[in-house]
Amino acid sequence: MSATIIAIDAMGGDFGPHCIVPASLDCLAEFPSLHLTLVGQRSLIDPLVATAAGVDRSRLRVVDADQVIAMDERPALALRGKPRSSMRLALELVRDGEAHACVSAGNTGALMALARHLLKTLPGIDRPAMVTSIPTRHGGSCLLLDLGANVDCDAQHLYQFALMGSVAASAMGVDRPRVALLNVGTEEIKGNQQVKLAAKLLQQAEALNYQGFIEGDGLFRGDADVAVCDGFVGNLLLKSSEGLAEMLGERVEALFRRSLGARLAGVLALPLLRQLRGELTPAAHNGASFLGLQGIVVKSHGGAGRDGFRTAVRHAVQEVEQNLPGQLLRRLERLH
Amino acid sequence: MSATIIAIDAMGGDFGPHCIVPASLDCLAEFPSLHLTLVGQRSLIDPLVATAAGVDRSRLRVVDADQVIAMDERPALALRGKPRSSMRLALELVRDGEAHACVSAGNTGALMALARHLLKTLPGIDRPAMVTSIPTRHGGSCLLLDLGANVDCDAQHLYQFALMGSVAASAMGVDRPRVALLNVGTEEIKGNQQVKLAAKLLQQAEALNYQGFIEGDGLFRGDADVAVCDGFVGNLLLKSSEGLAEMLGERVEALFRRSLGARLAGVLALPLLRQLRGELTPAAHNGASFLGLQGIVVKSHGGAGRDGFRTAVRHAVQEVEQNLPGQLLRRLERLH
Repeated sequence: MSATIIAIDAMGGDFGPHCIVPASLDCLAEFPSLHLTLVGQRSLIDPLVATAAGVDRSRLRVVDADQVIAMDERPALALRGKPRSSMRLALELVRDGEAHACVSAGNTGALMALARHLLKTLPGIDRPAMVTSIPTRHGGSCLLLDLGANVDCDAQHLYQFALMGSVAASAMGVDRPRVALLNVGTEEIKGNQQVKLAAKLLQQAEALNYQGFIEGDGLFRGDADVAVCDGFVGNLLLKSSEGLAEMLGERVEALFRRSLGARLAGVLALPLLRQLRGELTPAAHNGASFLGLQGIVVKSHGGAGRDGFRTAVRHAVQEVEQNLPGQLLRRLERLH
Repeated sequence: MSATIIAIDAMGGDFGPHCIVPASLDCLAEFPSLHLTLVGQRSLIDPLVATAAGVDRSRLRVVDADQVIAMDERPALALRGKPRSSMRLALELVRDGEAHACVSAGNTGALMALARHLLKTLPGIDRPAMVTSIPTRHGGSCLLLDLGANVDCDAQHLYQFALMGSVAASAMGVDRPRVALLNVGTEEIKGNQQVKLAAKLLQQAEALNYQGFIEGDGLFRGDADVAVCDGFVGNLLLKSSEGLAEMLGERVEALFRRSLGARLAGVLALPLLRQLRGELTPAAHNGASFLGLQGIVVKSHGGAGRDGFRTAVRHAVQEVEQNLPGQLLRRLERLH
């Protein structure tokens, strides 16, 4: 197996290098053919590497970057004003062929703006989309996109998201992925203008296994392998799901404190329920991919801890193995 | 206590009169001052009333309506083509002062179109909104609107929804309700055009306790008492939450079948978990109110069973007691 080189923006996220560096070193131990380039303030990174045990330093490189993009910085400013930010240098490594993928837990808007600017979109793709896999009933999963890269979308954008989602699902081993548009009803007359127009485009796309509209409940029921919506909707759906799951977990714990009998039941049940929570937790599903770029970029949740960041790096390794941009390019060339 | 008269569209929903009539009669027994007018095909309703035990027929009236609006009928056709539909006649009773409120489990789009046409909106309100209460952390709740009555909204509509939601929360006993706009981030620069403009309008509205933007996870965390979004987003949020809760319930049940030890834990834990499921189930929260009309209309979920429909009728009784349209009118008059 040839080496996979991943550039890590070590400065992003709510916890910065103190979380990202150890998580990255864990991955180095996990994947024998993985090489990492940690990009960020060397004065912060070096001590974290030095104190870590059992690190194969021959597969580790540190690139010094003295600028950091803040989590609330305007993307336009990050683009123009910080030529030596850790995020930018990590993406430049991908652009220059020195890394196969980039992982960052930093400012999403800035990451998208820089990635578009430095890596460019694939021919036929106007805007990259963010995609992640969500768990569905009966142990299945569904790719949901866009997750917030594009808050205003027209029908053509939604069509392109559908296409990219379908290729990504195929790459993950799904045969003829069922593609659907998220809508407020399943009848043709339902929905806003963009969704109705996108449905017309998708009905004509013979290369896609288009299923029509699905409603919110169909998403978790597993009615589609790829669910498409604009980034405003997708972001709210994803985050509200996280919030709801958290609330339900809290209520379950409270339930087992209500009485002595309940406490007894809880002694047996809570370890199992926490196991389920672990399987469904954002950390187990962390890592949204940017689709449609000439390069692989994975965004880790800003609030992800060590476990979560590791999951994001694993995602990136997988996408390098699948050569997702290459697959997308071939599919787009066949279409045009 | 004076009599409350509620007009029931007996023909709507997935189960029709066989579910709605018994549920309505249950409510008659529950509320001694409640009078009901069941509107629908008399040939179907009368036998269901005749076979019910212990019904106080002095508080029950049946109005014959020979037309039924189908669940997938276009609202425009329902409006023009069916002058004697059960839905229309039930709303006309409210318009003519013969009922204080109307409850229907029928076609949402048709109900909204007919309600707007027959009851008219309050002065200063362009479009009615659908609102419901969702459970939040620490046993709280939050009013979410719009839920799908308006798929395309401009800033002015969102502003009006915020105002109506605030009055509704006050009527429910919340002191200075915290009003927030749902968005993809909490910073001012985030969001689509409508949301940014609506934020400006709300910042200037001194009568409202406006809190700014909240993200999807803030919704269930209880960061606001009133969460405002367009109907496309609200509908998808609500339905995906239902789907997620269902999926989690299913996974929990599967969890307790995995091994003998798990089955033992399940014997103790599942009754408790099912109780929680009952508290959070759509049936316990069924009933979305149409806000902004000169009259009270409550929409029951089409798939609601007897329990769920009863909850929707209880909602209507409560709104009559609160005189929500009257409170809204006074608030709007003070503003203009």
